[in-house]
Amino acid sequence: MAIKAGVLGATGSVGQRFILLLEENPEFELVALGASKRSSGRAYGDVVAWKQTKPIPAQSSGLTVHECSAVHFTSCDVVFSGLDSDVAGDIEEEFVNHGINVISNAKNYRQHPQVPLVVPTANPEHLDHLANHDKSKGIHICISNCSTAGLVVPLKALQEKFGPISHMMVTTMQAVSGAGFSPGVSSMDVLDNLVPYIGSEEDKLEMEPRKILGDVDASTGTFLHIPQDEFKISATTTRVAVIDGHTASVSIKFAKNKPSKEEIIATWREYQSQCELLKCKSAPEHAIVYLDQPDRPQPRLDRDTGNGYTVSCGRLRDDEVLDYKFVCLSHNTVLGAAGSGILIAELLKAKNII
Amino acid sequence: MAIKAGVLGATGSVGQRFILLLEENPEFELVALGASKRSSGRAYGDVVAWKQTKPIPAQSSGLTVHECSAVHFTSCDVVFSGLDSDVAGDIEEEFVNHGINVISNAKNYRQHPQVPLVVPTANPEHLDHLANHDKSKGIHICISNCSTAGLVVPLKALQEKFGPISHMMVTTMQAVSGAGFSPGVSSMDVLDNLVPYIGSEEDKLEMEPRKILGDVDASTGTFLHIPQDEFKISATTTRVAVIDGHTASVSIKFAKNKPSKEEIIATWREYQSQCELLKCKSAPEHAIVYLDQPDRPQPRLDRDTGNGYTVSCGRLRDDEVLDYKFVCLSHNTVLGAAGSGILIAELLKAKNII
Amino acid sequence: MAIKAGVLGATGSVGQRFILLLEENPEFELVALGASKRSSGRAYGDVVAWKQTKPIPAQSSGLTVHECSAVHFTSCDVVFSGLDSDVAGDIEEEFVNHGINVISNAKNYRQHPQVPLVVPTANPEHLDHLANHDKSKGIHICISNCSTAGLVVPLKALQEKFGPISHMMVTTMQAVSGAGFSPGVSSMDVLDNLVPYIGSEEDKLEMEPRKILGDVDASTGTFLHIPQDEFKISATTTRVAVIDGHTASVSIKFAKNKPSKEEIIATWREYQSQCELLKCKSAPEHAIVYLDQPDRPQPRLDRDTGNGYTVSCGRLRDDEVLDYKFVCLSHNTVLGAAGSGILIAELLKAKNII
Amino acid sequence: MAIKAGVLGATGSVGQRFILLLEENPEFELVALGASKRSSGRAYGDVVAWKQTKPIPAQSSGLTVHECSAVHFTSCDVVFSGLDSDVAGDIEEEFVNHGINVISNAKNYRQHPQVPLVVPTANPEHLDHLANHDKSKGIHICISNCSTAGLVVPLKALQEKFGPISHMMVTTMQAVSGAGFSPGVSSMDVLDNLVPYIGSEEDKLEMEPRKILGDVDASTGTFLHIPQDEFKISATTTRVAVIDGHTASVSIKFAKNKPSKEEIIATWREYQSQCELLKCKSAPEHAIVYLDQPDRPQPRLDRDTGNGYTVSCGRLRDDEVLDYKFVCLSHNTVLGAAGSGILIAELLKAKNII
Repeated sequence: MAIKAGVLGATGSVGQRFILLLEENPEFELVALGASKRSSGRAYGDVVAWKQTKPIPAQSSGLTVHECSAVHFTSCDVVFSGLDSDVAGDIEEEFVNHGINVISNAKNYRQHPQVPLVVPTANPEHLDHLANHDKSKGIHICISNCSTAGLVVPLKALQEKFGPISHMMVTTMQAVSGAGFSPGVSSMDVLDNLVPYIGSEEDKLEMEPRKILGDVDASTGTFLHIPQDEFKISATTTRVAVIDGHTASVSIKFAKNKPSKEEIIATWREYQSQCELLKCKSAPEHAIVYLDQPDRPQPRLDRDTGNGYTVSCGRLRDDEVLDYKFVCLSHNTVLGAAGSGILIAELLKAKNII
Repeated sequence: MAIKAGVLGATGSVGQRFILLLEENPEFELVALGASKRSSGRAYGDVVAWKQTKPIPAQSSGLTVHECSAVHFTSCDVVFSGLDSDVAGDIEEEFVNHGINVISNAKNYRQHPQVPLVVPTANPEHLDHLANHDKSKGIHICISNCSTAGLVVPLKALQEKFGPISHMMVTTMQAVSGAGFSPGVSSMDVLDNLVPYIGSEEDKLEMEPRKILGDVDASTGTFLHIPQDEFKISATTTRVAVIDGHTASVSIKFAKNKPSKEEIIATWREYQSQCELLKCKSAPEHAIVYLDQPDRPQPRLDRDTGNGYTVSCGRLRDDEVLDYKFVCLSHNTVLGAAGSGILIAELLKAKNII
Repeated sequence: MAIKAGVLGATGSVGQRFILLLEENPEFELVALGASKRSSGRAYGDVVAWKQTKPIPAQSSGLTVHECSAVHFTSCDVVFSGLDSDVAGDIEEEFVNHGINVISNAKNYRQHPQVPLVVPTANPEHLDHLANHDKSKGIHICISNCSTAGLVVPLKALQEKFGPISHMMVTTMQAVSGAGFSPGVSSMDVLDNLVPYIGSEEDKLEMEPRKILGDVDASTGTFLHIPQDEFKISATTTRVAVIDGHTASVSIKFAKNKPSKEEIIATWREYQSQCELLKCKSAPEHAIVYLDQPDRPQPRLDRDTGNGYTVSCGRLRDDEVLDYKFVCLSHNTVLGAAGSGILIAELLKAKNII
Repeated sequence: MAIKAGVLGATGSVGQRFILLLEENPEFELVALGASKRSSGRAYGDVVAWKQTKPIPAQSSGLTVHECSAVHFTSCDVVFSGLDSDVAGDIEEEFVNHGINVISNAKNYRQHPQVPLVVPTANPEHLDHLANHDKSKGIHICISNCSTAGLVVPLKALQEKFGPISHMMVTTMQAVSGAGFSPGVSSMDVLDNLVPYIGSEEDKLEMEPRKILGDVDASTGTFLHIPQDEFKISATTTRVAVIDGHTASVSIKFAKNKPSKEEIIATWREYQSQCELLKCKSAPEHAIVYLDQPDRPQPRLDRDTGNGYTVSCGRLRDDEVLDYKFVCLSHNTVLGAAGSGILIAELLKAKNII
């Protein structure tokens, strides 16, 4: 039985990625599309400015677009939201209140204590706390920010084995696709140039890992942040001339035990998330790959590993200031956005939550 | 009286930059060019593959190229070396032994205790210790690595005012011009891509600032490194799709006094090096500029400030792990290479050393 | 006596370029700035999002911005319009009707038979027909489209010497700066990509050269197009990942006399426009440069020749279908836009028209 | 029964592409790899600098590399040559003389009258003339130049339906991957730049289509060029900042019948080559796709259509000088190089020639 899926914000860049991934995935059946009033009542193929490297799927192209109102999505087992944050708040609330399950790429509810913030290959166990959720409402889950997603997977593997990370410093070099395409990042900003600033991105990167790697109060179903003084994060985020794939230069310090480099690499290579163990269809063979070549990972060469669900790490070295430093790379529109949403839905099915 | 100048490695990319800067500068007269045996005896314009954005200067074009042997450079007040490191060691030694003053962009002698490593707007006072050098030999001075140059200027300003920096973490995003053009960085490496590795660059960046910001033992004329445990540096260096201009994401911690952000910005804005005080012709009006806009500095917009001799800083923020973080940018082929050589020679003249 | 100048559309990218060029040019005094109602009454420096590679000039920064109404510009000898075409039509008409001289970068009046369409190094003699213009009105002059400007200069040189060109086929590879920066060309369109289409650009390129290279009916002051069947132009225009500098692959056929390649190159090298002869300050030393290297011109290396006023040609070869083919390059924001406006004003002064 | 395949020049960029395509294709079994003496006797994975976006296939990685001598390739049904042209001439001759079938990407034999020059979706019928070849020797087939491949497919479709094309003018914008990666195209050449010249490329583009679209003298097995005065081609080739995908701006004139635009588009859409008819595994569903959007085809969005075997056309318009103009795009390392080799081998099998 395929999971019946809807997509909100279907004409935007995140929405288009959801649709592509859903159409390629036999676990899902795309049944409803939502966009702005302007597009409603028309065929998707007639209103979308399709900008993907694969053609628009024929089935989606013929679907009628609806306004983003719960009444049009009652047949959906899950609705993926690629809405802009200026409208996502109200719309997602209305959907959840009408009992519709929502997996959202918008930032609005990421810090909400009752809403899990999930990177499926990092903290899938947070979803277990939804099993007993208030059945009068839909489930509401947030996908992390794109720059967060790639970082927390290797951190989670280390945390499981060697205990808490106490400090992290990170400088990211982020791809332009994260900003969409209309207009997205201006070419004047990244040709022969880079921009050492992405609005509010550093705040997200300093906040979200503390929730994703944090505990859950099972009694109240509250998702807790690691206190700031137990996990200090300093982030600088920059935009570079790369289409897809966020690269991060990361330094970390362990709170207690400092493993050896060999232990870290072995831990990453052996790491398996529930996605792999539960044999989710989109789960990568390896959630983390460690590359031995001295000049890897590189976005163009490594972003598609595991169909974009694998985080590629490399260059693990001693750090003069903290314990270790390394480079990690993840696909910002797959693991960092739409792809995580799909894999979360697969986890929900595997866990019999939907 | 113009300074009579020679250039070694004249056909390479650093050599070409030396020649352009010398021809535009009335303080200098270019009198001798050295290159490999293959080019010797021929007119410079006939052997060089000129790849600059300004045409080859007519006067240089007609100069005869010599082999890099001291005998051809005896009329030079100073010789600028743009030689590759595989040949720079022996050739520069022969020049200095024959009494010729050499300012070198090669890495070979940067760690030599009797050779000053100078960024002219950071540690010009190191040159004073050459005033009494062994007159049987030429003066030998090294220009810093391109990624070092932009960092040490704002650090020096802070060190002067607030005492030592004890920790620095830096991730650079470096321009391709640093690697020259034949072949330099392959386009396959930086189109829709970046390379998070530059061979041996991190070692230089972790070593050179400790000498440039270090003391001199005046009795022996020895240039000392700040001990590693007093100034810990952790560097990650990456190559990005930018033609000119190295950007760095920097975090620092002060050893003793932690100034306020306002004090730091004021210090940078008020900083004046000897280059400005001695009115060196190539000296920038400001050795450091601090930009208030949240998304600056950017390489394409800011690298040419002060004709490429100014370091642009911005984004000063509190750092969760160390004290502060900021972004700085410098022009890698001006302050980071040939330009520094020119300004060092102007300093030598102003100080009556040559 | 400096020419008193105003700039309309001052906050846009063309307006910013006008301001930079005016401030660097002692022939002009910038006295008035016009922008949208939203900005009026405020200091220019407070309303502009300055995106040039040189800092905003201090004097302009302090000027108060006005609405684009003639009443605020009566002190101007000439007003440069960088307005968008959706508003340029009415505003420029109002200015001219109030006796203000307007030199416009907008497309609105380019095909108007009484308005000269001028590339200053190609058809400056068209301006002579303004000497006796209706004094109750201001002079109105249009700058050509950016892709036209670079083509007509080498064509004019040939036409003067060898008679009419009857056929031209051209494919352009145009820089992104032509589209401005907010948003301009999206980075998703030109990273690892090009777009073989620029809206309505081909129409301009097939129409404008026929007016610029055409005759003037002196009795009526009417600017005539060369009939389409006497000068057939086929254009394909594309957008590529270049910041500044439009490159064109051009094939031409002469109507009558087919000169030799040597004659063409000599003609280009000897060509002098009235700009040079009248010693206009911004006039390049050479309106056309022919490069002998087989791989030139290239935008990054050659666009700044003559401060962006020189057209660089190269690769003249026999053409299997027409007579000859060659590559030409021009700076789209200098000769192709604001710079031409400045040089036209200098011509008007030199010709005692203003 | 899989086709037993060998690859010459296995460590180069073309060789790597052959290996990737062969490993993904169950029709083939890769059994032998040839490279320079320096690599011989070692495991492929140990000697290759793998630079593909997919990991090196495990099976290939373990194969022992041999010198390029026929003795090591006797078990191969076909050998694909990715050799550089400076060595391809002698080596391929030795292979063919030893009875080994060679499909070569090198240029050396492309103009040889007994060697077919084949773009599999354009002139597969040329292969029929090999059925009766001298059995004492191997078959020798050349793949066309990468810039030729994309052009001749739409031309062939038109030629079949409307008779000969008499004139073609083309300006290409070619991707950097065509030049390989060590060093390939320098980043200094294509960042904020393009190079309007590719050595000897225009000659190939003016010559090869006349052979591919030409006749075969069945009695002698001679592959004939269309005489130059019956098919005039004028080409300008440029290098732009695109990783994969050659774009061409094309104008054509028909010798006799000028079809309507609708007829041309219909012809392209209905075109089927023998590859499709014979159900070759790598054959695209459509050898030609015509895109209705005004700004397509674009390399990043359209190069992977049909796994890189489809030619994308768009922008068909009337041409002022010739009959029509259009834009076409093809994947230079698939249809334009290694992929064509694979598809040619599949055709040989389907035709029972091997």
